Amino acid sequence: MSKLVKSIKEAIQLAGLKDGMTISFHHHLRNGDMVAVMVMDAICELGIKDMNVNISSVFDTHGPFIEYIRDGVITGIETDYMGGVVGRAVSEGIMDKPVTFRTHGGRPSDIIRGASPIDVAFIAAPTADCMGNCTGKIGKSACGSLGYAFADAMYAKKSIVITDNLVEYPLIDYSIAENYIDYVVAVDKIGEPSGIVSGTTKITKDPVGLVIADYAARAIDASGLLKDGFSFQTGAGGASLAAAKYLKDIMMKKNIKGSYGLGGITAYMVDMLNSGCFKALYDVQCFDLDAVRSIRENPNHMEVTAAHYASPTAKSSAVDSLDVVILGATEIDTDFNVNVHTDSNGYIMGGSGGHSDTAAGAKMSMIVAPLSRARLPIVVDKVLCKSTPGSTVDVLVTQRGIAVNPLRADLADRFKDAGLPVYDIHDLKAMAEQLNGTPKKPVLGDKIVANVLYRDGTLLDTIKNVPVK
Amino acid sequence: MSKLVKSIKEAIQLAGLKDGMTISFHHHLRNGDMVAVMVMDAICELGIKDMNVNISSVFDTHGPFIEYIRDGVITGIETDYMGGVVGRAVSEGIMDKPVTFRTHGGRPSDIIRGASPIDVAFIAAPTADCMGNCTGKIGKSACGSLGYAFADAMYAKKSIVITDNLVEYPLIDYSIAENYIDYVVAVDKIGEPSGIVSGTTKITKDPVGLVIADYAARAIDASGLLKDGFSFQTGAGGASLAAAKYLKDIMMKKNIKGSYGLGGITAYMVDMLNSGCFKALYDVQCFDLDAVRSIRENPNHMEVTAAHYASPTAKSSAVDSLDVVILGATEIDTDFNVNVHTDSNGYIMGGSGGHSDTAAGAKMSMIVAPLSRARLPIVVDKVLCKSTPGSTVDVLVTQRGIAVNPLRADLADRFKDAGLPVYDIHDLKAMAEQLNGTPKKPVLGDKIVANVLYRDGTLLDTIKNVPVK
Repeated sequence: MSKLVKSIKEAIQLAGLKDGMTISFHHHLRNGDMVAVMVMDAICELGIKDMNVNISSVFDTHGPFIEYIRDGVITGIETDYMGGVVGRAVSEGIMDKPVTFRTHGGRPSDIIRGASPIDVAFIAAPTADCMGNCTGKIGKSACGSLGYAFADAMYAKKSIVITDNLVEYPLIDYSIAENYIDYVVAVDKIGEPSGIVSGTTKITKDPVGLVIADYAARAIDASGLLKDGFSFQTGAGGASLAAAKYLKDIMMKKNIKGSYGLGGITAYMVDMLNSGCFKALYDVQCFDLDAVRSIRENPNHMEVTAAHYASPTAKSSAVDSLDVVILGATEIDTDFNVNVHTDSNGYIMGGSGGHSDTAAGAKMSMIVAPLSRARLPIVVDKVLCKSTPGSTVDVLVTQRGIAVNPLRADLADRFKDAGLPVYDIHDLKAMAEQLNGTPKKPVLGDKIVANVLYRDGTLLDTIKNVPVK
Repeated sequence: MSKLVKSIKEAIQLAGLKDGMTISFHHHLRNGDMVAVMVMDAICELGIKDMNVNISSVFDTHGPFIEYIRDGVITGIETDYMGGVVGRAVSEGIMDKPVTFRTHGGRPSDIIRGASPIDVAFIAAPTADCMGNCTGKIGKSACGSLGYAFADAMYAKKSIVITDNLVEYPLIDYSIAENYIDYVVAVDKIGEPSGIVSGTTKITKDPVGLVIADYAARAIDASGLLKDGFSFQTGAGGASLAAAKYLKDIMMKKNIKGSYGLGGITAYMVDMLNSGCFKALYDVQCFDLDAVRSIRENPNHMEVTAAHYASPTAKSSAVDSLDVVILGATEIDTDFNVNVHTDSNGYIMGGSGGHSDTAAGAKMSMIVAPLSRARLPIVVDKVLCKSTPGSTVDVLVTQRGIAVNPLRADLADRFKDAGLPVYDIHDLKAMAEQLNGTPKKPVLGDKIVANVLYRDGTLLDTIKNVPVK
């Protein structure tokens, strides 16, 4: 018995894919992913159309989706993040049906509870055996964790593994087990290695970023949370990584033995694990080769499923035990609502990912951002898109000072006691406007191009089209 | 946040357990298990009654169940195996409702597809953290694999972890993840170590058993299946283990590199792994301390869930790729149907476990048994209970010769070519009857005390009561 079929087309036909169905992809191969487009090509060649595509993130490598949208092959997209290439087209109104944005925790939650059923899941697997046991830890396209792919594989009606490294049965140290997989296809190449581990995973050298990082680390130190058992997540942006670096210095100096590091994992988090700052890493996604190597070799560096990472309907998830998360923002408003979906012109160029999941779970959620970006103040009266509700955002750290959500007067007191520059968020807004003037809001259209769902599945906001000039 | 509650009673109350509900247990602590009775005691003290108990196996340590049946605290039992103590009481008609017997693959299948829903699952966990991540690999009550407990934890409405080794969050190398667990209870002791790894896991020294084992190993050698990539499961009975020992000798001599060993794992299978006879073990249950140590330390020794092991409704399970399985029998009839549920008097003293799952999956299923036991021939006209259908049983090996299912003439030819003593199964029956006479069938009552479900959920047979003299 073997589930090996000779082509993606054959697997699609065997899976019974029909017009109007929902297919799914995961994004562990990031901007190196070749599988989603490869599958869409096969679907198009088979003359199947009206696909609803549930993909954990859309990267610029998925640019060919635009043509498939124009041709009616793709008519729906559900995702947690959308890069600028497809995002721009969506913002300009290319789709009749609004995109559905979820969070990295909301997505598995909705799949598991049946709110977003998947007909056929396509699992890009850097290594697999002929029965479908698969892993991301080894192979020429190794990406490390396959955390986002578990719910797809487990709950889709049909699940197809696509690999470029087929090994003898049974695969040792598999992540996703054969009992969930219907078909296996071997192809030459599932991803471009340089793109798999790309992303903004380098520490910033920008002096503004370093000031922000220094404040952020000192604020964490002052928060009362930085003690033995400390748990931490940080984004992969330059200032966030610099904050992790400074935080590590403090932890080493004070000999603080943390509990776990969480999230998308970078070399910086691996370094903190190996330095004894954490006893474990919970990894839902690897951002670089050091993380891939570590998850393969170090048993304390553990793969977690997206549901275990952040699902709000799981009986608990790792974000629920999190002390501190450092997050980015394109905008934050004076009610601490954060936008990570659209740029200042209203174009889609991001998404929540785990932003609002971790903000909701962590004891302290901290936004790091420069006071202005491209002469536009980061603090606004009202964000263009509410990605993360202000009620779950505790602190904003800029190079000019720190604003604390009024709900967290305890933190403001601690920061002041530690000599950190604490301001009202309106003051930070005024500082930026004094430097750069008050920005003009972009004029958006009336068409809803995306619905932003909160992690619990409720509608949090909508994104309107950007009129094409 | 912590799921830790201070007692089993509190966890039961928080889980909302009510009269008439279904609770579940797993049997990885085998005859050392203290958790099932501990929980029943708490349920009784809380005045809750009419429990339907779904337990993967009932051992003699669960003798106190009998009193709870008499008192109406337990009114239903669903299991894959039942030892002689509770089995005798059930056979004598102590329960109003028949016991439901499933297989180790049918049980998770029925749980997952919703055919046997569980209200509250109790997971005996040798190590756990306060959020419910747990493992059987470490702790004073270490039992190794928790394979049978996954479906319970994942699909029960409420899941409660009971541990005697609570460790800091997050537990490294967890088996069952926190996202499935509602409550955690720490107790002094979940199991008696001597009972956890007890069982018939010693190689036979009985000359008859050794002859059977020798024939069995030679038959496997002759089958055409023993070549590179060979996969194998054997029971933990003395003759089965001796057969594994002889098989190892053949594999070593011929330098055959097998693929995987499967099932309940003993030191003998671990030795075969370490000797290079297999590249991997798939372990649903550890039978002894060597197996526990190996699954903890050797990444090639992998825990599998019961669904991955043997579920007939999984998209595949490990039994589907199995070459050879060696199994026991209390009786086999001339149509090759096998009884492993009742003894010659009709008393329940066993169950299918993975018997009919592996028989259905393996390319060759082999029964090893002495020609007679306690002067009773092993081959009968019709088994008292059909545990495994004859259509899935290929070979019977006794000390006097080998009988091959007429469906498998190919095997008979191979065995004859290898000089093995092949007989018609009727001839083996006649040989035994010549020695010991024709046995009298026990007279059974009219009450159905158990329904035996095949792995696909259909009714395979019923077990009648033994009239009390």
